[in-house]
Amino acid sequence: MRLTYHLLKQPPEQSKRLASALAVLTDRVRPCDRCNNLTEEPLCSYCSDPRRDAAVICVVEEAADIASIERTGEFRGVFHVLGGRLSPLDGVGPDDLKVHGLVVRVQAGGVREVILATNPKLEGEATALYVQEQLATFDVVVTRIARGIPVGGDLEYADGVTIAQAIAARRVMT
Amino acid sequence: MRLTYHLLKQPPEQSKRLASALAVLTDRVRPCDRCNNLTEEPLCSYCSDPRRDAAVICVVEEAADIASIERTGEFRGVFHVLGGRLSPLDGVGPDDLKVHGLVVRVQAGGVREVILATNPKLEGEATALYVQEQLATFDVVVTRIARGIPVGGDLEYADGVTIAQAIAARRVMT
Repeated sequence: MRLTYHLLKQPPEQSKRLASALAVLTDRVRPCDRCNNLTEEPLCSYCSDPRRDAAVICVVEEAADIASIERTGEFRGVFHVLGGRLSPLDGVGPDDLKVHGLVVRVQAGGVREVILATNPKLEGEATALYVQEQLATFDVVVTRIARGIPVGGDLEYADGVTIAQAIAARRVMT
Repeated sequence: MRLTYHLLKQPPEQSKRLASALAVLTDRVRPCDRCNNLTEEPLCSYCSDPRRDAAVICVVEEAADIASIERTGEFRGVFHVLGGRLSPLDGVGPDDLKVHGLVVRVQAGGVREVILATNPKLEGEATALYVQEQLATFDVVVTRIARGIPVGGDLEYADGVTIAQAIAARRVMT
């Protein structure tokens, strides 16, 4: 309803353009052949960018997570989108995730590190452990993003599990 | 006002007991001779507990932060309370923090690691760097608690700096 009110205030071309964009959305946008990111080409903008380091693959649950990581401007590797997380209660099992494509990429060689950036919740942790198992036989370093106190946060308001993780994952200052 | 209304609903002994506790509060409670934690004895309950590992010192800004860390039940070392954080805008400089006592403790030997658990904000980071400098000449490992996505959190709602730190502080999965 909000969208409708907004569109009615805009010039008519606005809603016409939105209509035509929506009409071709599902025709044009497809998963990247390599990483399952959303794209209009066979390969997404990250997989086809020669300046990205293809030896480091960051594994995320959803294509939207790529935007969160890209916002930091500090990651120069490529991605792999699982398309979800293990969640038996929702009927999502290992076969529903696109892990096979990741295994194939690692198997093909040239991959130095796989960073598991699934969300630090129960399902995301289970998913990370599952992906790690699938990659165990390959010569690749599998890492997990740090759980800890968010920047700008306060020990006083952090939950115990997060504080415990922040202490466990402490790093030597250099 | 809330407190007053609450007390008026309680039996009169309640407010009498509170009154007498408040009367002796500032007489009895004092900083621990070793770590500046609040205590009624010369040494606080952590410093005087032989089951705590005195070779690992966790440095916090305020005595209240000890409670947050103890809530996790996973830290078995001892503490050092700085009594604040570097904050030039509030007129808090290095001399207002109890860093000297920490240096003396490390200098005395037997300390293997100092964990800097100041809050991951601007002032806390500056304080951590300052304490690290003060300990640079000693044979002790200085570590910093991890900044990252809180447990149960979501990449989508995390800020860019936190995501960047979570990626930078990633750990090899074992």
